[in-house]
Parts: sequence; C-alpha cells; structure tokens
Amino acid sequence: MTKIEARLEALGLILPAALQIPAGLVLPFPWVSVRGTRVFISRHGAQETDGSLSHPLGKVGAEVSLAQAKELARKVGLSILGSLKRELGDLDRITGWAKALGMVNSAPGFGDQPAVINGFSELILEVFGPAVGRHARSAVGMAGLPFGMAVEIEAEVLIAG
Amino acid sequence: MTKIEARLEALGLILPAALQIPAGLVLPFPWVSVRGTRVFISRHGAQETDGSLSHPLGKVGAEVSLAQAKELARKVGLSILGSLKRELGDLDRITGWAKALGMVNSAPGFGDQPAVINGFSELILEVFGPAVGRHARSAVGMAGLPFGMAVEIEAEVLIAG
Amino acid sequence: MTKIEARLEALGLILPAALQIPAGLVLPFPWVSVRGTRVFISRHGAQETDGSLSHPLGKVGAEVSLAQAKELARKVGLSILGSLKRELGDLDRITGWAKALGMVNSAPGFGDQPAVINGFSELILEVFGPAVGRHARSAVGMAGLPFGMAVEIEAEVLIAG
Repeated sequence: MTKIEARLEALGLILPAALQIPAGLVLPFPWVSVRGTRVFISRHGAQETDGSLSHPLGKVGAEVSLAQAKELARKVGLSILGSLKRELGDLDRITGWAKALGMVNSAPGFGDQPAVINGFSELILEVFGPAVGRHARSAVGMAGLPFGMAVEIEAEVLIAG
Repeated sequence: MTKIEARLEALGLILPAALQIPAGLVLPFPWVSVRGTRVFISRHGAQETDGSLSHPLGKVGAEVSLAQAKELARKVGLSILGSLKRELGDLDRITGWAKALGMVNSAPGFGDQPAVINGFSELILEVFGPAVGRHARSAVGMAGLPFGMAVEIEAEVLIAG
Repeated sequence: MTKIEARLEALGLILPAALQIPAGLVLPFPWVSVRGTRVFISRHGAQETDGSLSHPLGKVGAEVSLAQAKELARKVGLSILGSLKRELGDLDRITGWAKALGMVNSAPGFGDQPAVINGFSELILEVFGPAVGRHARSAVGMAGLPFGMAVEIEAEVLIAG
C-alpha cells in the first residue's frame, strides 16, 4: 500500500467512483489531464461513494447551509482524489499541490465562501501534510454552477518529471 | 500551409480579425502572453470575422438561448485561435492545450454551463485532435461579463521550448 | 535598496501590512506559495497600510462606484506586492508576471469589469515596466466575494530557477 493510500485508510476515507454523468450530457474533456509535470484538474463537484451526485443542490446561503456546503467541499476533495488516482495510478506521485479555485453557488448576500472551501483545504492538508498539501487558493461566489451544484473546485497539482 | 491552417481550411473555418475595442476603453494587457513554453490567453469573447463584437449580448437562460450561447462559445474559440496566430505566427507551434475556464453570464437558475462551453471544446478537438487538443476545463456561471457578453473563455496552451 | 523597492519609493507607494484576519476565521492556505519557478498568489482583497480591510464593501454598480472600485483594485495590487515581498524577500526576484484573474462583485447589469481591474494592471505596469509586468488577464463579475469585498484578484508570477 502506498503512503497516501495508507493515510486515507487511517483516516477512514473512501474515494468515490467516477461521476455518473446524467443521460444525454456530453463532457468532451478529461477530469484530469497530465502535461509534463503539471496535472490539470477540471472542475469537480461532490459525489457519493457510488459516483452519484451529492445533495443538497442549490445556492449556499439559501437552500444549502454553510455546514452542508463545507461538507460538500470536503466531498469535492474526495472526488478529485478519486479522479487523480484513476489518472495517475498512485497518489504518491503528487509532489505538490499548486493552486485551487473554489467556486460557491452563492445566494445574494452570502460572503462566507472561505469557510465553505475550508472543507476542501483541510482535507488536502490532512491527507498530504503541509509540505505537499500547501496550496494557493481563491474562494468566490458564482451566479450558477452546472446542475445547480452548490460547490465546485478546480485545481492544479505537480508530479515528478 | 501549415498543418493546423490546412485543417482550418478543410473545416471551412475563418479566424476573425483582432477585436475592435470600443472607443474610450483601454485594455492594458495582451490577448496572448508567452512566458517560456507557457502561453497565457486572456479572456476572449465572441467576435465576427471583421473583429466586431458578436451578438446577442445578455444573460444565458434569459436573453440568450442555450443554442445561441453554444454557438457564441464556438466563436470565442475562433477568436482565441486568431489571437494565437497573431502572437505565435504559426498554430502548429502549439504542443498541447492545458486548460480552459469557460465563463457563462448566467440568468438565475441557469445550470447548463457545460453544454454552452462544449461549443468551444468541440472546436478545439476538431482542429487539434485529441492528443494536442485535450484540455482540462471548468464551465461556470458569472454574475456579469464585460459589455454584457454572454460567454467568455480564458485558457493556457503550451509550446515547445 | 533593490530596483523595485526604489521604484515603489519613487512612486510614493507603501506596501500594506499583512491582512488583519477577522476573529474566528481560519484561512488554511498561504497568501503566496512558491513551487519551483512558479509563484501562486491566492486571491487578495484591498487593505489599508495597517492591514485592515479597505472600504467600501459591497457590489460594484450599486454600493461601490466604478471610480472607487478601480482604486480598490489598485490597493489589491499593493496588497499582493506586500505578500510577495514577505514571501520572496526581494521583489526583484520576479522575472515575469504570468496571469491575473480579476473578480468584481457585480451588481445586476454592471459590465465595466475591465475598467475596474485596470487599477491593478496599471499599477503592475508602473512598478515592473512592460517586459516584466505584462500579464494575461481576465476581469469578470462574481455573485459574491468573501466579507462582501468589492474586488479580489488572484495571480501567478515567475521567478528565476
């Protein structure tokens, strides 16, 4: 077992299956794309262990509470780790997290985007530790997200050359 | 004729002239900026062959339909290719598409951003093929875009060192 | 005195202290993160010389005027330079600005995001000159920003290897 997989197991974390894409939807892009030492992660939403879309959907600050949104952001992190494992084979190949853009489907007046995206950042730091897990971050409010999802995150990580 | 130019011609695609910037507007940044092997593409909107802003303007899901928005996203792709050709001289220099951020000026409740930005992704894959054209992608809803444009996209591509 | 510091002094510019983070808020990410030759800058807002949050807060086009927002964007630039100096030690280490994403908390119908973010771009060009300061840029409208800030910017710069 690799180091990161052992860490995931010790934390009791399970990576979800690939997203079940709604019928009729075509997504002509990869969830993760490797170009040299750079690994580009397309926006991910939250999904359950079986790959189904997590709920609740809707705007944070209205249909979705801050606590629910933070938990969704943590699940987005697990979705991303699942995609990275499927693409890289071994999560130990990741030498550093570079950056993340946390996007929160925000009701008018909602301004706690950082507290939401902390659900993601805390997960990454728990799993990878501060040296590898450290990442620049923005957490901002969007007018809408695909399928009415509450939280989406895109990111970039680095692997050895 | 280079390979990509031949491909554009075979597809009947014409790259638009540089954007006609509205009078009084100063844009103190380049459309495309090369730093080493990385090519940064500022946000582009859709423009017609003569460089004029494409219509309709407005929010997707309200004034602009999904089909119109997808066509605008395709035109954004052509605008980007025009800027890349002016900056790089030869589109064959592009060794890989890295990532794109698709921004959709979204009416309340609109959640079909991926279907809109497919207009861009499908164009890039048609012109560059899957190996070079493959790109990580996010497609999200903005509260507003410059001049009320419906779709904007920023991206990064790679060239040989 | 280094070249960029001399330039800041000649322009009469003072870099603000680190942001005073509101009580109870945890931000588990660095303002600036260096990975090799790439320097990732997390989203910054505008802050006063003492590190307190700049005002006004609110949506541009409603509570915040275009002129105020442009001035806030310039202050965001100074905040970013302050963080870069604290992390890099010497701003002369910066060999090139790569890209910036300017995020404007936008009231319905506001479409002058580029004119707002010019406050940032003009500062960077004044301080670093066109060769180093040149950056790809997007300027877009968000549905909300942390604490109701009017303008935030994230960016990437490069340093020598």
